[in-house]
Amino acid sequence: MTMRRPTIGVFDSGFGGLTVLKALLELIPDADYLYFGDTARLPYGSKSVETVARYAVEAAHYLEAHSAQLLVIACNTATALALDRITAAAHVPVVGVVEPGAEAAAEATKNKKVVVIGTEATVSSHAYRKALEARQLNAREKACPLLVPLVEEGWVDHTVTEQVARIYLGQAFGDGFHDADVLVLGCTHYPLLKPLLHRVVPANVTIVDSAESTAHAVAAHLQELLPRSEAQLESRATPRLKFFATDSVEKFRRLGQRFLGHSTDDVQHVDLKE
Amino acid sequence: MTMRRPTIGVFDSGFGGLTVLKALLELIPDADYLYFGDTARLPYGSKSVETVARYAVEAAHYLEAHSAQLLVIACNTATALALDRITAAAHVPVVGVVEPGAEAAAEATKNKKVVVIGTEATVSSHAYRKALEARQLNAREKACPLLVPLVEEGWVDHTVTEQVARIYLGQAFGDGFHDADVLVLGCTHYPLLKPLLHRVVPANVTIVDSAESTAHAVAAHLQELLPRSEAQLESRATPRLKFFATDSVEKFRRLGQRFLGHSTDDVQHVDLKE
Repeated sequence: MTMRRPTIGVFDSGFGGLTVLKALLELIPDADYLYFGDTARLPYGSKSVETVARYAVEAAHYLEAHSAQLLVIACNTATALALDRITAAAHVPVVGVVEPGAEAAAEATKNKKVVVIGTEATVSSHAYRKALEARQLNAREKACPLLVPLVEEGWVDHTVTEQVARIYLGQAFGDGFHDADVLVLGCTHYPLLKPLLHRVVPANVTIVDSAESTAHAVAAHLQELLPRSEAQLESRATPRLKFFATDSVEKFRRLGQRFLGHSTDDVQHVDLKE
Repeated sequence: MTMRRPTIGVFDSGFGGLTVLKALLELIPDADYLYFGDTARLPYGSKSVETVARYAVEAAHYLEAHSAQLLVIACNTATALALDRITAAAHVPVVGVVEPGAEAAAEATKNKKVVVIGTEATVSSHAYRKALEARQLNAREKACPLLVPLVEEGWVDHTVTEQVARIYLGQAFGDGFHDADVLVLGCTHYPLLKPLLHRVVPANVTIVDSAESTAHAVAAHLQELLPRSEAQLESRATPRLKFFATDSVEKFRRLGQRFLGHSTDDVQHVDLKE
């Protein structure tokens, strides 16, 4: 018996979640993907819980209505501020990025001191601190609001970006956290800065990118949802990818490539007010 | 006969337009003001014409419904991309920031070469170039997407901001524009960077802040709308100020102070989906 390939819905405020989609495509190529980027209302990182929750629930409903069987909240801010609300509103399983990131940090740390960088909203929610403290780890959270615009400017290996990173991480690793040995990238834009961040943090620090750990969490969920022992998934050369964006389709194609590493052709404009 | 004070509606994507409101309060204290900040959907500077126009028209209607007798589009991006659409949709006079800024540049330049800095969307629209060329001036437009986040981070006098400004302005004043003698601040966040920008541009360059020139344009409009010769305006110690924000009221109060220079107490949350 051949079973239909599962359809996974991936949601982000914009383009950053494409780094999560990229990790998913590598780990789970035998699925199809819907990606929703709320590009007309990004960024979420500076906005309030109420606003972010409302936007994220709308997007989740949209993906469900388009047959997503599992939702990945690939946006750290939406996960940190609204995962409970999204899970309550959805009728399919929902996977966020915070728990997988915290789990990967717990596996990587030796001295139980972890630094998390993210948007202002993610840090204010203390979602990472709670998830890390639940694993008996000491957490230091630091908001780095300039890193997203620097990535979007394309300055991923620029001297200005390195200075900004040194200022932020100097503060994050100061004051009792000099010996932290894990840095969690609590924002999906940050994986593009990995080479630069490796130069800035002490050599013994492991950088945890929640994209990969989230992909593993999704694979585990799928295993429960569609046990491989019962059915062989329909196999096809490449996953089917469909993208939805609330702002310009042309811009999504242009910027999407930077995050995903290959082209994003099938993009459809969505107006959530309709 | 004492006439009722006029009510002026000021619209911006967020907080930057408060620099225009500040100029209005100084020049026209005998009016009342409604300020609408679309903080749940900011920034507009990276978004498409369709999206920005839709958002701006919604805000304009909201201000009209709250008795604004004249609308000031204090957002450069909204003016550049959607002034025609807003004017067509509104039932009261509409004043944008681009024409007053271009007019002030024309008055200030001696050698008819003007540099304009703004958001990606403002620059792509070429609204400033058209307005300046209509005045027989040579214009160079340069998008500076990092300056808004740097202002919002509070780094208005930071060495990193100065480096970023040197990179952007080095490009803007290069290549045939070394002798430009006017710099137009085509974004309402930039007036907060004036002292820093004065250090970066050549000494002979005049910096034009469209906030002030816009306030003068509004005063001229009011003169037509409510001729002083016919009526003495009701005079009161201080203008009545009311603020509407689509994101958190608390955050508006906190950040608003930085732009307006004094507190913004009467803030009401607005959900444009309702």
